[in-house]
Amino acid sequence: MYNADHEFEKLGLSLPPAPAPKGVYKPYVIDGKYLYLSGHGPVQDDASLIIGRIGRDIDIEAGKRSAQQVGLTMLSTIKTNFGSLNRVKRVIKILGMVNCTDDFEQHPYVINGCSELFAKVWGEENGIGTRSAVGFGSLPDNIPVEIEALFELHED
Amino acid sequence: MYNADHEFEKLGLSLPPAPAPKGVYKPYVIDGKYLYLSGHGPVQDDASLIIGRIGRDIDIEAGKRSAQQVGLTMLSTIKTNFGSLNRVKRVIKILGMVNCTDDFEQHPYVINGCSELFAKVWGEENGIGTRSAVGFGSLPDNIPVEIEALFELHED
Amino acid sequence: MYNADHEFEKLGLSLPPAPAPKGVYKPYVIDGKYLYLSGHGPVQDDASLIIGRIGRDIDIEAGKRSAQQVGLTMLSTIKTNFGSLNRVKRVIKILGMVNCTDDFEQHPYVINGCSELFAKVWGEENGIGTRSAVGFGSLPDNIPVEIEALFELHED
Repeated sequence: MYNADHEFEKLGLSLPPAPAPKGVYKPYVIDGKYLYLSGHGPVQDDASLIIGRIGRDIDIEAGKRSAQQVGLTMLSTIKTNFGSLNRVKRVIKILGMVNCTDDFEQHPYVINGCSELFAKVWGEENGIGTRSAVGFGSLPDNIPVEIEALFELHED
Repeated sequence: MYNADHEFEKLGLSLPPAPAPKGVYKPYVIDGKYLYLSGHGPVQDDASLIIGRIGRDIDIEAGKRSAQQVGLTMLSTIKTNFGSLNRVKRVIKILGMVNCTDDFEQHPYVINGCSELFAKVWGEENGIGTRSAVGFGSLPDNIPVEIEALFELHED
Repeated sequence: MYNADHEFEKLGLSLPPAPAPKGVYKPYVIDGKYLYLSGHGPVQDDASLIIGRIGRDIDIEAGKRSAQQVGLTMLSTIKTNFGSLNRVKRVIKILGMVNCTDDFEQHPYVINGCSELFAKVWGEENGIGTRSAVGFGSLPDNIPVEIEALFELHED
């Protein structure tokens, strides 16, 4: 049987601490078989955020790594609150928000940093869903990437 | 029994007129137990909009007040179309869209203006859901804040 | 009986090729009666994209035509994968993402290019849903418009 926790362990990556809300919102909401995740930023293992605008402060490769770190932060929220990544059946939709200069054109490449991680954790079929990956005028704390998501959970 | 209409009355705030669509869309759609609200702007009691970019035309406190006004506008859409705020069971998700200069970093603080209102109306548990609060390049009519939402309704 | 394919034919418009993903995502996901569409750009009949920022590279009318072309591209994804536009019962929600200069204020007018098309294809009641139409800092490949959508499908 497919084991997302095991797949994650094989990657040799560490999970940052699950972030507390920085405003009046919940990190996640469960609605029946759906799991909504609030916009997550790139929390690092020491709980600090990766900071910087792509194309001005950091380059595209650092941006893609930031998107992976956002993915790890989302996994941490799931693991911390549900105990296992296996509670998630599949990715339905993510919104990849990129903080970049207005001449930037490679948002999909950046957000692949998160999507490739999810594909490894939950597999190509279930870890990949619909997506928009687009450029925002600014993001909180000047983080390079923020991502929100809708997952389908396994029925209990 | 919890009464959102009564909680709202206690705040001593007035509801602006529910806005008519400014394009080819519906202000809301009901899908089973779900209520989707289109992006709402900060309509004032005289039906005019609050205008201005945060960090250039208006400051952060005016921005937060604008987000509260957006919340009031959303409440007006609900009240006008359903007769009562009690039709809403809880907030599942909101997207807080902030029109600000590109060096702005406090989007969550601004959108709290709406989230704190919803928490007072529907209570801390049901009035607060998932959220992204992020900076856009521009918004229609140069409004400072626009918010869209997904609510869960009480079953009839 | 209402026939969306027939309504589309009456418009005399051609469908561009359905776009392949440009990153790690699926063009669509079906979840029960829901159809999620990833962010789509304005693909033309020769498979090339319409390019340009509204207010700098192209004007508002070209922007609105681009939004219609995005709508045609979304129709192509539906028709190609399901064989018929009649699989869609109604539009629940679209997010209209506009790539424009930061002084642009008429995002709803631009996105009407897509919404008016959907209204013709599925009718005024079912083709029009909730919407946000807002300005982004940048979009992939510098396309002028990107749109993602949530549709309700007819039960099989």
